[in-house]
Amino acid sequence: MRKLRIGMVQQHCTADIADNIARLQGYVREAAAKGAQLVVLQELHNSLYFCQEENTKLCDLAEPIPGPSTESFGALARELGIVIVLSLFERRTPGIYHNTAVVLETDGSIAGKYRKMHIPDDPLFYEKFYFTPGDMGFQPIKTSLATLGILVCWDQWYPEAARAMALNGAELLIYPTAIGGVPTDPDWEQAQQRQAWQLVQRGHSVANGLPVITVNRTGVEPDPTGHSTGIDFWGHSFATGAQGELLTEFEKAEEGVRVVEVDLEQSEYVRRGWPFLRDRRIDAYDVLLKRYGLD
Amino acid sequence: MRKLRIGMVQQHCTADIADNIARLQGYVREAAAKGAQLVVLQELHNSLYFCQEENTKLCDLAEPIPGPSTESFGALARELGIVIVLSLFERRTPGIYHNTAVVLETDGSIAGKYRKMHIPDDPLFYEKFYFTPGDMGFQPIKTSLATLGILVCWDQWYPEAARAMALNGAELLIYPTAIGGVPTDPDWEQAQQRQAWQLVQRGHSVANGLPVITVNRTGVEPDPTGHSTGIDFWGHSFATGAQGELLTEFEKAEEGVRVVEVDLEQSEYVRRGWPFLRDRRIDAYDVLLKRYGLD
Repeated sequence: MRKLRIGMVQQHCTADIADNIARLQGYVREAAAKGAQLVVLQELHNSLYFCQEENTKLCDLAEPIPGPSTESFGALARELGIVIVLSLFERRTPGIYHNTAVVLETDGSIAGKYRKMHIPDDPLFYEKFYFTPGDMGFQPIKTSLATLGILVCWDQWYPEAARAMALNGAELLIYPTAIGGVPTDPDWEQAQQRQAWQLVQRGHSVANGLPVITVNRTGVEPDPTGHSTGIDFWGHSFATGAQGELLTEFEKAEEGVRVVEVDLEQSEYVRRGWPFLRDRRIDAYDVLLKRYGLD
Repeated sequence: MRKLRIGMVQQHCTADIADNIARLQGYVREAAAKGAQLVVLQELHNSLYFCQEENTKLCDLAEPIPGPSTESFGALARELGIVIVLSLFERRTPGIYHNTAVVLETDGSIAGKYRKMHIPDDPLFYEKFYFTPGDMGFQPIKTSLATLGILVCWDQWYPEAARAMALNGAELLIYPTAIGGVPTDPDWEQAQQRQAWQLVQRGHSVANGLPVITVNRTGVEPDPTGHSTGIDFWGHSFATGAQGELLTEFEKAEEGVRVVEVDLEQSEYVRRGWPFLRDRRIDAYDVLLKRYGLD
């Protein structure tokens, strides 16, 4: 057994960034106190989910990497001797911003980063306005604990992304995310959407024989334009083992920490039993590199 | 709404091929009488699942396409005015056999065939001995009812196969299958495996915005070598809508017909709401055409 104890922090955010960060850091300490070796935070955890409107002023929220967040959370990682997965609004240069996950090593240094590759855009989730699509590909990040396949939110719908991380050596898949319901969708449909969201990610776990760790935000965040009632984030952060089995799942409105233990040797066990990677038809997948196959 | 009523036939098989076929044809009639426009049979439905041993004599079970099964089921398709999905052991030439699905049109003609692309091989499922891997790619089959993305059993674990069918125009995914438990796996593990089997396919439904129809066999089939207690087939055939939601699910030991109605227009609805295909990073998926990314 090669056990890894992972802390998952699900929280609500407000316009008070200092308070958001103070609570995050408190939960990271709590996770470490509960034995977590690796702590995962939700997508864009420092602020409100600002993509509900298209507003150039909000680019002020972006920060360089390295920058203030990698400094302060890096100090915390070093103090606690843990690995931390951040999700930041990266300012690369004026006119180029990214939605970027950063992995901090146990000594506080930056182990690596991942720039969100698949960028969504739909009402209240206007991410294409803010985020330049990632240009670093699907490269897992090596840490002293394990090789982490970090993906972000909308990436979670893409089997290609999960597979690419697996083929590039990821030992587990980690998804910081910010997903919720919009008031135009009725309750039954939000329930079906939330189920679909979990299903597809558990499917990635099964198809690749890897644990999946998904950390979402919770709470209602009002629409700053006043045109809608905003986003009701789903919470329901969850973790699976290497065969898609649920290890833990938060409640919708739950705020706080859960620590889950995954066994990284389970992947070898399930991949020996069901060796999907052995039988991939790489001679016949050309259409996967096309937008559409028929024209 | 563009409704399609699909009959699913889950049955057990014995060494009495004539009886297996007679029961299948009875269930096809029952499905048509219940309004099915399309009927799907399980993998290798005419016989026992013969791949529990490697025995050249069993190649006698193979038949040409067109051949006896396409003749007799073709006559039935014509009589009932329905489309039927068969799963046959194809004899192409001595030394080349395939695991092949055949779609029969409402006039009894052959609409198209699909040769299983991903071939498994594990204890009691020695398929690599019998089946040459398919050489027709992932081409959906056009029928008067819809364009069918037919895949077979082991294919169900591959997101690549489902995506390829979707990109090539499939309007639904159909999986004839023969999966069950082996006695060396304890009950908890079989339960987890069966859940993984359903999860990954519901995940394909979500990722591609397509209904999934999976028809499995039921019953225990003894190991002809006497070295084990054979395979306990899982049954649990199921169908989903275009967002992975379960529409119906058989019991494990249930034998018979269920008719499920899918709405082919739901795919456009869910793909407009969550346009995953719009945002695929086809510039960054090269590793999907490799066996492994690191060497």
